[in-house]
Amino acid sequence: MTANTFADDCVENNKHYADSFDKADVPLPPGRKAAVVACMDARIETGRLLGLSEGDAHVIRNAGGVVTDDVLRSLVISQRLLGTEEIILVQHTDCGMLTFRDDDVKDSIEADTGLRPSFALEAFPHLEENVRQSIRRIEACPFIPVKDKIRGFVYNVSSGLLDEVL
Amino acid sequence: MTANTFADDCVENNKHYADSFDKADVPLPPGRKAAVVACMDARIETGRLLGLSEGDAHVIRNAGGVVTDDVLRSLVISQRLLGTEEIILVQHTDCGMLTFRDDDVKDSIEADTGLRPSFALEAFPHLEENVRQSIRRIEACPFIPVKDKIRGFVYNVSSGLLDEVL
Repeated sequence: MTANTFADDCVENNKHYADSFDKADVPLPPGRKAAVVACMDARIETGRLLGLSEGDAHVIRNAGGVVTDDVLRSLVISQRLLGTEEIILVQHTDCGMLTFRDDDVKDSIEADTGLRPSFALEAFPHLEENVRQSIRRIEACPFIPVKDKIRGFVYNVSSGLLDEVL
Repeated sequence: MTANTFADDCVENNKHYADSFDKADVPLPPGRKAAVVACMDARIETGRLLGLSEGDAHVIRNAGGVVTDDVLRSLVISQRLLGTEEIILVQHTDCGMLTFRDDDVKDSIEADTGLRPSFALEAFPHLEENVRQSIRRIEACPFIPVKDKIRGFVYNVSSGLLDEVL
């Protein structure tokens, strides 16, 4: 007997979700006119920890929850095409991005594959400062129209609590 | 009296989440050794629709759930530093990315700001084909070591069901 893969389990879990699905009429534009930018970390369940319902807010996630060009792309689409006006950033304690430097991992990838990535891995040494850096990147982007409602948080993976970065 | 902003409500909701928080000891590497790549769409609650618990899987999301360079960056970190080996992609019906062409939105941004974005917006005309395109982009990336467990799905926002793209 072969063990279920993660994908198999997701498909099975999804059937239960669909059985009691009552969100067929939720519109495409986010009801709370908001976008969340958060780390991909497995311990972060944005829906539960922020109390989101289906339809409330865009959720953009990547390694670190850092504002990269792709996050700016997503925010441009979120605001210009789908009417969001508010942005919250969620980075977190014990983040993997605090544990390495780009150069070291690039060295190891180059040793392994013969190719050195031309892109930044976006590791960072200071959590709160990285939240501020991410906010500044949004503020510096000429394509994002609404920038007066941006707030940054550190999520504590030990307590479950958000702490605002001021 | 001022209405609560979205961020205020998130902070308030988060207090309730933290009150019953029992995930303090969940380790950093994803327990199911998996990464999910999904669209930022507000109707997609990855945790609920896939049945994920805190700690199970990385969740990477952007406009479209398309595999961009930033998604590849996140997957490189997910696999090389945090040991994931399986990837599922979740794009969905009624996606905003099906409703425009890059050139038209860039024209409008240029008319509005005087600047034309140098990056792709990644709109796409065919949903299933875009899932396959995203899988091919992962397969073509020399920095991602494990590529034999990648599966792509279309999530139906009207029924709540995942449909695999074969």
